[in-house]
Parts: sequence; structure tokens; C-alpha cells
Amino acid sequence: MGSTFLPGPPVLPPNFKTLINALTESPLSLLSFHSRRSWKLHSKMALPMRNNLKHFPRFIQKLNSPKRLLCVGLRPENKEAPRSGRVFSGIQPTGVPHLGNYLGALENWVSLQHQYPSVLYSIVDLHSITQPQDPTQLKSNILDMAASLLACGINPEKAILFQQSQVSEHAELSWILGCLTSMPRLRHLPQWKMKSKVKNEGSVGLYTYPVLQAADILLYKSTHVPVGEDQVQHLELVQDLARIFNNRYGELFPEPCALLSSTQKVKSLRDPSAKMSKSDPQTMATVSVTDTPDDITLKIRRAVTDFTSEVTFDPETRPGVSNLVNIHAAVAMISVQEAVSQARGLDTGAYKKLVSDAVIQRLTPIREEIERLRSDRAHLERVLAQGTCRARELAAPVLAEVRQRVGFC
Amino acid sequence: MGSTFLPGPPVLPPNFKTLINALTESPLSLLSFHSRRSWKLHSKMALPMRNNLKHFPRFIQKLNSPKRLLCVGLRPENKEAPRSGRVFSGIQPTGVPHLGNYLGALENWVSLQHQYPSVLYSIVDLHSITQPQDPTQLKSNILDMAASLLACGINPEKAILFQQSQVSEHAELSWILGCLTSMPRLRHLPQWKMKSKVKNEGSVGLYTYPVLQAADILLYKSTHVPVGEDQVQHLELVQDLARIFNNRYGELFPEPCALLSSTQKVKSLRDPSAKMSKSDPQTMATVSVTDTPDDITLKIRRAVTDFTSEVTFDPETRPGVSNLVNIHAAVAMISVQEAVSQARGLDTGAYKKLVSDAVIQRLTPIREEIERLRSDRAHLERVLAQGTCRARELAAPVLAEVRQRVGFC
Repeated sequence: MGSTFLPGPPVLPPNFKTLINALTESPLSLLSFHSRRSWKLHSKMALPMRNNLKHFPRFIQKLNSPKRLLCVGLRPENKEAPRSGRVFSGIQPTGVPHLGNYLGALENWVSLQHQYPSVLYSIVDLHSITQPQDPTQLKSNILDMAASLLACGINPEKAILFQQSQVSEHAELSWILGCLTSMPRLRHLPQWKMKSKVKNEGSVGLYTYPVLQAADILLYKSTHVPVGEDQVQHLELVQDLARIFNNRYGELFPEPCALLSSTQKVKSLRDPSAKMSKSDPQTMATVSVTDTPDDITLKIRRAVTDFTSEVTFDPETRPGVSNLVNIHAAVAMISVQEAVSQARGLDTGAYKKLVSDAVIQRLTPIREEIERLRSDRAHLERVLAQGTCRARELAAPVLAEVRQRVGFC
Repeated sequence: MGSTFLPGPPVLPPNFKTLINALTESPLSLLSFHSRRSWKLHSKMALPMRNNLKHFPRFIQKLNSPKRLLCVGLRPENKEAPRSGRVFSGIQPTGVPHLGNYLGALENWVSLQHQYPSVLYSIVDLHSITQPQDPTQLKSNILDMAASLLACGINPEKAILFQQSQVSEHAELSWILGCLTSMPRLRHLPQWKMKSKVKNEGSVGLYTYPVLQAADILLYKSTHVPVGEDQVQHLELVQDLARIFNNRYGELFPEPCALLSSTQKVKSLRDPSAKMSKSDPQTMATVSVTDTPDDITLKIRRAVTDFTSEVTFDPETRPGVSNLVNIHAAVAMISVQEAVSQARGLDTGAYKKLVSDAVIQRLTPIREEIERLRSDRAHLERVLAQGTCRARELAAPVLAEVRQRVGFC
């Protein structure tokens, strides 16, 4: 599938949702933004960069702070020739991912392996302990996540798959970057505001985790980071810290830019106003990628919809049925319009059967592969150990350079 | 010199100064405190522990929180048979230390080498970057501090002398402990309150440095930490974090106790209400251990005293001359009473000559040795590299155990 670009003069999508929609029309675009609700699409810039992404850093330098370079939008199915640059992303070891993780992030991870010459995916266990964890469960969740990533299509020959805590350079760089981060800079990040309210402040780790995230990314001189909408402000911190370090100690880190997935967020099956979440207390709200066909059928049959039996797509007024349409389109790799047209003549009950069949068809090979991999713990540990070695090979010289610049040696 | 203990029932020194005075009478004592102004001396407990310090941890467990085990007070000259336990302390690489550093901490460090079977002294460069540093200056300051420590009498055969940033386990353990530390726990520490006021909040590193300090100490399962009065609340955090970790993941860390030096703080020669400090903008306020005899004579001749020519010791009403008496007593290794008696018949002008001669006599061999060592950079780097190896040998298995307990492997 080819790339198309928004024609004509730069446009200003009024908000994030419009931006995402614009991106689905424009698989490769370069955008800057001035505030959370004011975006600028540089279509003229995008065109010459299509085959030459190495110009990104120069363009970033041209943008005056507080403008931010934000996006290269890519549709997951848009498999083009390899680009330059390095992709980094991390996932917390929550065990087996759910359908929302898979469609929202992991599917995109799989396709990025084919698009970039260097890709690192980290199971970020250092981040996971910012919330209390049972140690035995955590260990088992790390291996389950490794098995799940492999089963979803992460290829350890193409992507470096590793466990964050096994590469000591992450924590070391995090300390150094923390000395360049002001306290208020973290206090206003929305995730801290939200989580600390629930936890009555939370731990130092919870407060400083965006700094560790910055270290994760910069340690590999990453240029591209697939992120969700809720992580955009964290990526701005990474860009700021790269700039602050470079200003103080000389040019070293590229300012990484976000790869925003155009996939709509998968919502809870019990409350379509909330994201699908592993920690949802309602077991019927979340489809795990290891759910059996019976489980999937039951959960989707019980999904909250509304009193209209016709299937239409309108997330604002009909969030429940629109969530099913989104899931259907994503698992069947068709457009939302195509999904709605397949539902023509079906009531929501019959459509749920169609959706659950599509989900089962997509998840069954993943579930079977996870089961197979889970029974071979030694293999999983070997894959992670090899990933750790390769990650350290990249991280060690960068940290050595950082140490020298800072004056430690 | 033997040990004596305060006789009779437990006493409650009304404040810290009284406590310090009590300790000079009681070289080995065990104390708990209930608040900053309420101390309890457990003289009965101290006696059986004299030859058996390994009972400390059990005693600590008996103390209900928020009571704290605080001190084993030792006079620097009190060289007894080796005790059990491990001493850890750190010093920031500020370059060449001043007289206050030497008398307040380093002299004590030298004597602790002979008292404990295992002693670690770290040049804490990770801490130093919580304030902006010039990289070239920092590197040179690290080597200058190494030279100074060796010249002051740190013996790298007895004590492990190393550079903190070269042992990656410090930053790693710091991250893990940060996940066990609540945000408010750090906010109320007096050093943060003071420094953040000056800096308009300061960096994340400045806020979290007491957690890194805890990691420095616990990483070696240290049992004793020589601290100044201003660090007592930081050591309480270390004790708390040891307890929190042990409660959550099983007994691993001893709760380290403070070794409070009985040496009076050396004050600024220009403002005897303030501590002698390297960062004092008045160059006449601070005596560096590498000052020439002429510099020392000049600085002490210009030291602020008062309009009474007789030499007496009364820090409250006569802080300037009392500071000189303290310095004299400390460098000549005599008591304050002996120093005052040597000053009998002298006016402050003549006494300043006596004090500067005593300081010169004490510092000259140190200055000469620093100059010699500074010219042999390779030797200094070798000493630090050997220290790093030995420190890592101790740190690695402890961090491996921590990782396993937390669930990373």
C-alpha cells in the first residue's frame, strides 16, 4: 500500500482526535504542535523526508521551543522499505497482554520491525515496581510477557528483545538525567497527577519514572518511539532532556520523535467510556490474548451496547457498538467502513457473533504459540539473555560517553 | 585508652550538643531517640555490647518505631581492638578538602580503618552532580580528592577507596529503594528544605539524593556510618528503607547505626556562626589542607575574634576565639581545657600565632604528600580502579540477591 500526503497548505487539526484521523489519511506526515490543542501539519516538509528520515534532527533544531516535533504517522499495515533510525519501546511485564495491548501497540511493534533497521523492545520491569508487585508473580509475568511478544510476532532476529533490569545502564543514565530535571517538570505530568491522587502521592519511583523512561530511550540514541496519546507529554520530557544534555555537554542524543499509532483505543467491554485494562476488576471487561474461544464468545456476547439493534459507527453517541466495530476492523484488518458494511442486516446480537469469530480467528494462533513457549522456560530465558547482551553492546559505549562528558572519567 | 560508660539510670540529654558532650565522656554508648530533642542513653545495654557489636540488629528490632537506634560514640583517638561490622562513608569530590573536612570527618575515617575489619570510603561523584559541575573540574576534583584522602592517612590496603559512579550497582539499588520511598518522606528532610529554597526547588537528583545515599550504605550491608549532625535524619531514612525492604522481601539488610564524631564543627574564620565551607566566597574564611604556611598564618591572623584579648572557651558568647581554641585542640590532639591552659598569658594576637603554628605543623606533611601524589595521576587512577574492583566484588552479590527478592530473576 502506497503513501499519500495531505495536499495544499498546512492544516491545523483542532484536536488530537482530528489529528489521528488526519494521520489515517496520511501515513507519513511531519507535525509540530504549539499546545495540546493546536497542531500544525507540515505537509511540504513531509514529502522530501519520505525517503530520508535522517533529516529529522536538523528539522527539530529549526523548531523553536516550545514547539515540538511530534509525529510520523504510520498505518500498521503500511509496510514500506526500511527507513533509517532506531525505534525503542517498552512494555510493563503485566503477564499476558490483552486485546487492547495487542491492537494498540504490539501489532504496530511487529510492523515496525520491518520498517526500521534497528529496533529495541524492552520488558520494563524497573518501571513495574513503581507499583507494589508480588515477586513470584513478577518473575512469572516477565516470562509470560516474553512468550506473548514472541507469539505476537516479535522476531528476536530483527528486534532486540530484552529485560530492562538486566541492563544496568538504564538506572545509571536515569540518575544522571534526574540531575538535569527540575522537580516541577515532573509534577505537572498528567499520569503523576492521576496516579498520585489514587495512591495519596505514591512513591519516589512513581514520580521519577518519566526520567527512567527518558534514559531507556536516550541510552540507545533512539530516534523514534511508538507511543500512545497518554505518553505524548512524557516524550516531550525525553526531547527536553536530550536538548538539555546536548546543550550542557555537547551534542550526543538525537531528540526522538513519536510514532503515533492510528489504531483506535480498544475500550472496556463493560464500560466503553474506559480503556480496556488488565487491572479492571470486572473479568468480563477485558479479552486476554490467551482467552479460549468460549471465553471470547461469552465476553463479547455480554459486551455493553445499547437499545438500538442496527450496527452503526458513532463513538460519541454509541460507544459500546462502536467499540465492537473498532475491534472487528482491527482484528480483521479492514477499515471501519468495511466492518460496518459487513454488519449490514445484522442486529447487534448477530454482529457480536461475527466479531467474536473474527477475534478468535486472530487470537487462536497467538494463544497456541504462547502455550507452546510457556512450556519452554529455558528457551524464553535464552532469548532474553541474548537480547540483554545485544542491548548492552549498544548501551555501554553510550553510557561511557555520557560518563566522560559529565566528568566522571 | 579504655572505655567508660555513663553510670546510673538512663539520662535524657536535652539537646544534640549535650549529647555530643555526653559522648566525649562515653566513648561507646547506645542511644535511642524519640524526637530531635529527646534522647535516651541506654547505658545498661551498652555494657554487654562492648565486645559484641553483632547484637546490635537484634536490639534495633526491639525498639519500637518511631524510636531510633542512633549512636556508638567513639573518640577519634580511641583506638581499640577491631570491632565487627562494616563502615561506609562517602565524600563529595570537592577537590582538596579544607580543615573542617579534615578535622570533622577525615581524621575520624583514618581512625575507623583501624577499628573495623571492613571499611569502605567512596568519592561520591553521582551525588556531586545534584549541583551543576564543570566536567573538567569535576574530573580533576575526583583525583584531587583521592590524593587528599591518601595523604590524610586513608590506607587503601585497609579501606576500600573507590569512585561511586564506577560501581553501577549504586544507581540500580537507588532506583529499587526509590520505589519503596514515599514522596513526603523526602520533602521534610531539612537539607532539601534548605537547598531547594536557595535553588527555587532544585533538581530531581537533589530531591532524591538521600535515597541514593541509602543505596550507597545498604549495598554493602554496612552496619556503621560516620555522620555529621546534619545527616542524622538521612541515616534514619536509610534505617527505614532497610526495615521496609526487609519487611517486604525478607531479612537482608542490617539497619546501620550512626557513628557520631565528637569533634566540634570547625567554623568559618570570617563568620564563626557558619560552618567552614569550600564554597564560602570569602577566601580568608577557609583553610585548605594544601594552603602554604604563609596562607595559613595570614588567614588565622585575620580570623574574626572580639574585643577581649584574653583567650577563653565559650562558643555561645565568644564564637570566634572559641573556634580557634577548637581548631588548636583538634590539630594538636589535646583537650579544649589543655588548649586554653596553653593560651594562658597570651592575648588573642599571640594565641593566633600559636594556633597557626599548630595548624601548619599538622597540615604540612599532608600538603607535601598531596603534591607528590598529584604528580602521579596514573597511581591515583590505579588505586581507584583497584578500589572499584573490590567494591564491586562486595556489591554485585548483594544486588543479585536484591534482584532475585524483588522478582527480576
